[in-house]
Amino acid sequence: MAEHKPWDGRFAEKTDDMVEAFTSSIQVDKRLYAHDITGSIAHARTLAEAGVIDSDEADAMEKGLRQVKGEIEAGNFKYDDSLEDIHMHIESRLTEILGPTAAKLHTGRSRNDQIALDNRLYLRDETRQIVAMLHELRQAIVDSAQAHLDYFVPGYTHLQRAQPVLLSHHLMAYYEMFTRDSDRFTDALYRINVMPLGSAALAGTTFPLDREYTASLLGFEGVTQNSMDAVSDRDFIMEFLSDASICMVHLSRMSEELVLWSSSEFAFLNMPDAFATGSSIMPQKKNPDVPELVRGKTGRVVGSLMAILTTMKSLPMAYNRDMQEDKPPLFDAVDTLKACVAMFARMVPKLEFNRRNMFDASNQGFLNATDMADYLVEKGVPFREAHGIVGRAVAYALDRGRELHEISLNDLRKFSDKLEKDLYEALTVEHVVERRRTIGGTASVNVIAAIGRAQTQLQAETSGD
Amino acid sequence: MAEHKPWDGRFAEKTDDMVEAFTSSIQVDKRLYAHDITGSIAHARTLAEAGVIDSDEADAMEKGLRQVKGEIEAGNFKYDDSLEDIHMHIESRLTEILGPTAAKLHTGRSRNDQIALDNRLYLRDETRQIVAMLHELRQAIVDSAQAHLDYFVPGYTHLQRAQPVLLSHHLMAYYEMFTRDSDRFTDALYRINVMPLGSAALAGTTFPLDREYTASLLGFEGVTQNSMDAVSDRDFIMEFLSDASICMVHLSRMSEELVLWSSSEFAFLNMPDAFATGSSIMPQKKNPDVPELVRGKTGRVVGSLMAILTTMKSLPMAYNRDMQEDKPPLFDAVDTLKACVAMFARMVPKLEFNRRNMFDASNQGFLNATDMADYLVEKGVPFREAHGIVGRAVAYALDRGRELHEISLNDLRKFSDKLEKDLYEALTVEHVVERRRTIGGTASVNVIAAIGRAQTQLQAETSGD
Amino acid sequence: MAEHKPWDGRFAEKTDDMVEAFTSSIQVDKRLYAHDITGSIAHARTLAEAGVIDSDEADAMEKGLRQVKGEIEAGNFKYDDSLEDIHMHIESRLTEILGPTAAKLHTGRSRNDQIALDNRLYLRDETRQIVAMLHELRQAIVDSAQAHLDYFVPGYTHLQRAQPVLLSHHLMAYYEMFTRDSDRFTDALYRINVMPLGSAALAGTTFPLDREYTASLLGFEGVTQNSMDAVSDRDFIMEFLSDASICMVHLSRMSEELVLWSSSEFAFLNMPDAFATGSSIMPQKKNPDVPELVRGKTGRVVGSLMAILTTMKSLPMAYNRDMQEDKPPLFDAVDTLKACVAMFARMVPKLEFNRRNMFDASNQGFLNATDMADYLVEKGVPFREAHGIVGRAVAYALDRGRELHEISLNDLRKFSDKLEKDLYEALTVEHVVERRRTIGGTASVNVIAAIGRAQTQLQAETSGD
Amino acid sequence: MAEHKPWDGRFAEKTDDMVEAFTSSIQVDKRLYAHDITGSIAHARTLAEAGVIDSDEADAMEKGLRQVKGEIEAGNFKYDDSLEDIHMHIESRLTEILGPTAAKLHTGRSRNDQIALDNRLYLRDETRQIVAMLHELRQAIVDSAQAHLDYFVPGYTHLQRAQPVLLSHHLMAYYEMFTRDSDRFTDALYRINVMPLGSAALAGTTFPLDREYTASLLGFEGVTQNSMDAVSDRDFIMEFLSDASICMVHLSRMSEELVLWSSSEFAFLNMPDAFATGSSIMPQKKNPDVPELVRGKTGRVVGSLMAILTTMKSLPMAYNRDMQEDKPPLFDAVDTLKACVAMFARMVPKLEFNRRNMFDASNQGFLNATDMADYLVEKGVPFREAHGIVGRAVAYALDRGRELHEISLNDLRKFSDKLEKDLYEALTVEHVVERRRTIGGTASVNVIAAIGRAQTQLQAETSGD
Repeated sequence: MAEHKPWDGRFAEKTDDMVEAFTSSIQVDKRLYAHDITGSIAHARTLAEAGVIDSDEADAMEKGLRQVKGEIEAGNFKYDDSLEDIHMHIESRLTEILGPTAAKLHTGRSRNDQIALDNRLYLRDETRQIVAMLHELRQAIVDSAQAHLDYFVPGYTHLQRAQPVLLSHHLMAYYEMFTRDSDRFTDALYRINVMPLGSAALAGTTFPLDREYTASLLGFEGVTQNSMDAVSDRDFIMEFLSDASICMVHLSRMSEELVLWSSSEFAFLNMPDAFATGSSIMPQKKNPDVPELVRGKTGRVVGSLMAILTTMKSLPMAYNRDMQEDKPPLFDAVDTLKACVAMFARMVPKLEFNRRNMFDASNQGFLNATDMADYLVEKGVPFREAHGIVGRAVAYALDRGRELHEISLNDLRKFSDKLEKDLYEALTVEHVVERRRTIGGTASVNVIAAIGRAQTQLQAETSGD
Repeated sequence: MAEHKPWDGRFAEKTDDMVEAFTSSIQVDKRLYAHDITGSIAHARTLAEAGVIDSDEADAMEKGLRQVKGEIEAGNFKYDDSLEDIHMHIESRLTEILGPTAAKLHTGRSRNDQIALDNRLYLRDETRQIVAMLHELRQAIVDSAQAHLDYFVPGYTHLQRAQPVLLSHHLMAYYEMFTRDSDRFTDALYRINVMPLGSAALAGTTFPLDREYTASLLGFEGVTQNSMDAVSDRDFIMEFLSDASICMVHLSRMSEELVLWSSSEFAFLNMPDAFATGSSIMPQKKNPDVPELVRGKTGRVVGSLMAILTTMKSLPMAYNRDMQEDKPPLFDAVDTLKACVAMFARMVPKLEFNRRNMFDASNQGFLNATDMADYLVEKGVPFREAHGIVGRAVAYALDRGRELHEISLNDLRKFSDKLEKDLYEALTVEHVVERRRTIGGTASVNVIAAIGRAQTQLQAETSGD
Repeated sequence: MAEHKPWDGRFAEKTDDMVEAFTSSIQVDKRLYAHDITGSIAHARTLAEAGVIDSDEADAMEKGLRQVKGEIEAGNFKYDDSLEDIHMHIESRLTEILGPTAAKLHTGRSRNDQIALDNRLYLRDETRQIVAMLHELRQAIVDSAQAHLDYFVPGYTHLQRAQPVLLSHHLMAYYEMFTRDSDRFTDALYRINVMPLGSAALAGTTFPLDREYTASLLGFEGVTQNSMDAVSDRDFIMEFLSDASICMVHLSRMSEELVLWSSSEFAFLNMPDAFATGSSIMPQKKNPDVPELVRGKTGRVVGSLMAILTTMKSLPMAYNRDMQEDKPPLFDAVDTLKACVAMFARMVPKLEFNRRNMFDASNQGFLNATDMADYLVEKGVPFREAHGIVGRAVAYALDRGRELHEISLNDLRKFSDKLEKDLYEALTVEHVVERRRTIGGTASVNVIAAIGRAQTQLQAETSGD
Repeated sequence: MAEHKPWDGRFAEKTDDMVEAFTSSIQVDKRLYAHDITGSIAHARTLAEAGVIDSDEADAMEKGLRQVKGEIEAGNFKYDDSLEDIHMHIESRLTEILGPTAAKLHTGRSRNDQIALDNRLYLRDETRQIVAMLHELRQAIVDSAQAHLDYFVPGYTHLQRAQPVLLSHHLMAYYEMFTRDSDRFTDALYRINVMPLGSAALAGTTFPLDREYTASLLGFEGVTQNSMDAVSDRDFIMEFLSDASICMVHLSRMSEELVLWSSSEFAFLNMPDAFATGSSIMPQKKNPDVPELVRGKTGRVVGSLMAILTTMKSLPMAYNRDMQEDKPPLFDAVDTLKACVAMFARMVPKLEFNRRNMFDASNQGFLNATDMADYLVEKGVPFREAHGIVGRAVAYALDRGRELHEISLNDLRKFSDKLEKDLYEALTVEHVVERRRTIGGTASVNVIAAIGRAQTQLQAETSGD
């Protein structure tokens, strides 16, 4: 137990032990050690640059801080609730190493702006990693789309077979989603990447610190413009968690499809053994655990978003201790999202699609009915009327257990005399797919173009980094 | 890495390492070890009772399981992602100890009903503990109410001073809230306390197990009535988290008041040094960290509720791996709620209320205006009219920087000639409080009665346990 | 626009028009008119009983209030934002009818306890209706279970076929869920059904009102015990919305299954035309819109729960205007839940299950693998070993595109020489189902018993009402 | 009731009435009428441009659609659940006007891409309006900051007085928050402003429609690139609701402060009569209803975000009827957010701050303690040591009921002999504020500069529009 708190001058009684454990955040925030040390080194440099300390002191601080970092990474560091948080742990150890000089490091700084800095440094790193992981996942999707250009699959609405599409087209829909996710995280990065140090407790520091200099040392694009906002702003966490929640919703949708497609009923997908698990009781089972877990973890990330929104609601300015509760949901969501995206990036290339089953399903269930209606429209029948004709033909075919293309022309012509022999070609899966040529449609010409654009974009992102 | 999975008979490839880590739950569910072992012992007894194994085997299993428990509690137990979960860890160690006999323990059981059992045993214990902790908190509140019967405090609506009340009355409002919480948890216990074992994977066991016997061994009040429901039901978790969220909302409300009352502006409360912390930069600060943190943690519990609701939404029957994600929000919420309730139970007796400031505030700000209106009503003025008269008198007093009782009778009679000298007595804080005599009102006679009822109730709960 | 507010005595300026519209709740709370009037009549009677008004006045008030109710129900009532809320609208109209006597009705009452009363009267009615609707739905489920006792369906875990079950058993799992929902709503009713009037603004009324008398007039089981709690308690709304959310999660799970089963891939269910809709573009489509919408509406109810928890978080005592925001989420959730439960109660009896497809699916996909393992266990093979044997046999059969029961005994005996000819009987769907005889298992004897118990319970509830 | 559905060709039974009401969205989506008509006119032009219809037909359609719009706006339009949604209502009326030509309008279009278009057109308009309203609010804040440059107010952390700041500095913190909100909405606009029409049901249209042309007619910046994504993407709604939730959190924080500041205890703010309401029972009350309601409505918007995330979770591709449930939370959140921002923009200029009370509070409570420590640091005392000295001085002063600057130099020097007479100047409120000169600090030089930058930015935004 620490002899003294950094703030106990005016206190007569010592902190209750249970309170100490309750208010301590060290078990949560210790993961910020590297960012805390990086920030402290930059702060030491800034103090020296401002003449508040001399440069030998800054050197000593940097050396000492690097030693502390080494100790932490070597696993030799002792954590203690009485030292409250990671800032105090590092400073306390630095004091043991440096003696009184260490006490100068906190000049012009408060834990309020220090934690804001650590949070931002941490989340900047993690967001960049997530963008990179999404890049990998998007690459995996595009590569899979490229590799399966000759796979047809039913497109569904309402989980009813609607129209056949290329499997590649289906996959590329996820490329679009994850690209928007990546864009959102990149937008968020602009608002994360702002330097709060120098805001002190809430009103700004009284020392002539060059905040732009600190920012440049730490690679920030700018500095915060209002000290009260700077120490109480958690927007970047709320925004990150919103983006993470939307991304998890996308992963949950893809997971749902992978689970469906792995079922005996769909049988579109063979989940590789390496990505499935079995049952302790049912010897035949091969379960799509990975997508199930990802789908389940969506709740966790959404829950974290709700947690931070609830916590921040109605807090008056500036810093309140409630804000310490920003870290458990943030850390949990970062870990969860990274694990899920990485898992998907690894799994997507291994997915074994069942071409035959997908094609057969595309050819059964009247997925060409819209095209029969379009055929009639091209022969001059107004769309709404054509729709009715085909609806009745479908009902007729259903009664007979047949598909539209399995009904004879004679029989079909009972519904409209505009139908001719060329109808049957119009009703093939390939024809149906290839007729959807406008931008964004499933015709292979479009899908190939979309894959090409995506490959170019992915490459540009990499070289641009 | 385990050589074999309990289910790898039909698998050709071994599990991908990253998948193994991703799907493993051991870091989360290892805290269920004691409940898992308790459940397994009961299952062994049930197997013996049904003649599926002989009683020597059951004895050996029990002994082995107790040994495993001892090893875990001694900290000698090795955890390994390849063993997936706590069930496999315990069974694997039991196999090392017992040899082939251990393999019979899983007869007639699946991990699906086993985890349902563990969850229920765990949550039953925790819910009972929470009810007991709420009992302590309620006791602390009632005792404080009893100790402060001569403290007046402004009652607020819209955070505007409204009418004076007894501090004890104000405190007893929280007694009501936490009593409802306790009732809700008790209601939830009925639905938690039902025994699922014997449901096997989803369709029921084929072995002639006497499920009522298992239930009686484990102290359950009944057994689940449908095996598919039993393995996929997480209602008890959703319900518990709902109750926990409401309880946290109550704690957040009390926290908000403690924070307000600790401010210089209110100055109704001196947070004892032992329950406050200081600032690393501002030497004068004494911060009410405990209620701030409790208020902030409300978000976390609400987030956990949202997590489980989102996770469970739309899951088809029966067990899905998504359900593994029930534990992180549950465990986090249990820990958080227990810590907050315990912290409050410890803090409430230490709160030092500032009687003088509370009284002065009760006497300023026209808190007796309603009583002046009631005075007029008693003299035959319709309420709505009386309200208007007093409103104008208040405006008049405000202009002069006075309270109503500081205006002369002559001046007051300009607003109504029904006002007499006895008005001034009617306007004293004590009189205003004592006139509210109907059940639930703030008059001391009621508050004393309410405290008495509460003491009786609390005592009855204890002796009833 | 009203000339005077009921509270404008002390106000110099009149309310800004935009503020008037913003703070007005009449568009939302006008639906409480009947409960407000019922409550006011009881209040008038209580005032008379206490001698605060005479009984002629009470009679006149009751007559006037009934006239207002008639006008509202006839659609002749004019709403106006300047009158803020339903209480003011009714009182204002009553004043037009009765003159000065009307002004006495608000004696000893505040809008704070009045709205608490209205909320409770409203929610008591709605909760009872919901319990009744759930009764209907549960009846529909039990009847359907009774009607389909000879339907087999695959039981799934991880959406993989696991073990065959009776369709009735599957349906009865939902009976269990909705019964727990009903129980939760019934528990909530105890906490809803408490009478708050007499709490006045926050400190209790000064008039000698007999609150127990009011409660008995209104059919409440008790009165609130603390006036501050009474006017600021919204637990009953939070609890109701929690229960509603859990119930919607159940409906979403059943919806998910109905959607799956309506797909071409499952084809277990024919959604009657009357319960499906088509596509404006695809003539063949028949979409399971009802379960899709119910599943989608789950979000809405969960969102409402989140709304009220967030709104209530951190509110100091007693009433705050924020609490006005309790009604939009409550009303929306009540309407949504009622519509969904009623829709399901109407749809369940019309569901046309495809017996043949369900049976065929139960017979394919190794759903009898567990039973082959159990067979081996009965011949003395430890369960874990038996599981491995069957796993290898499944892999062997899969390679050959066969089911276990389609492999010759000779070939099977390569995996274990304990296998005999009687194995084949053990592997039939019927046998597999019938072997699960313990309470809660899928054997018909259990399911019939469960249906019987349910019928008895449902009948008892009806006659008990 | 409509004779025919647009899709009933294959249906034998007519829709159940209750189903019709349940699935109908007309009461919700009728507010999209103008966007639906705008989209249809552009679609008609695109059909003509592609030669699918001739330009006379397009002219007739446009004229007819404008007539329908006129009828709707004149209030002469009849809504009917059997016509399901706004699209069908408009098309049905157009058919009455135009006859068979109307039937061609739906060529190459599905309700799936049509509703995606309407949603985007609607949300583009609303988002732009919200950005404009936020502009007004930000302007009001900056103007207020400019007008109150000589007001000092205590800066708080943990709701404890921490350091004095300029009121303008405090206000400008909100400028920062609302500016980030505006930026987030602007980022969201890029992802909203993409044209989905031509995606048809899910696979793309078969007609040679020039989607870029449609986009240019409607002012979109681009077209969606994948038809399946286009009809099932609700990211723009989830992102908007995230941004709206964060904005509401900001409004809730400012509301909390306005409520606190309006209390008797703070008395920093006089809420103008026009923005407050009274009590029906307590004649003295003037309640800050507007900020209370805004704070309460935060829950509603967060609830809407939760709703859409829950609804979208796990939906397989492409369109599912669940997505119809995107509109109630979206519309409610748009309305709520707009009302709150507009209300604040109107209220901020009217806020009457109490300069005297704010200054007095800034001068009491040891808000200059940090500066006393800084004073010592400048005299060479290490910060941590200086902090301890001042802490002890504060305890000493507290015991005597004095402020630091009310203690004699002699007495103060007992704590450190570095203290000199110039200390007293360093401890004045003005001095304390002015010493915080680094960027973002509260010194007037900074605050004036920040106001200047904000004014420039606001003007640039206006002229840039």
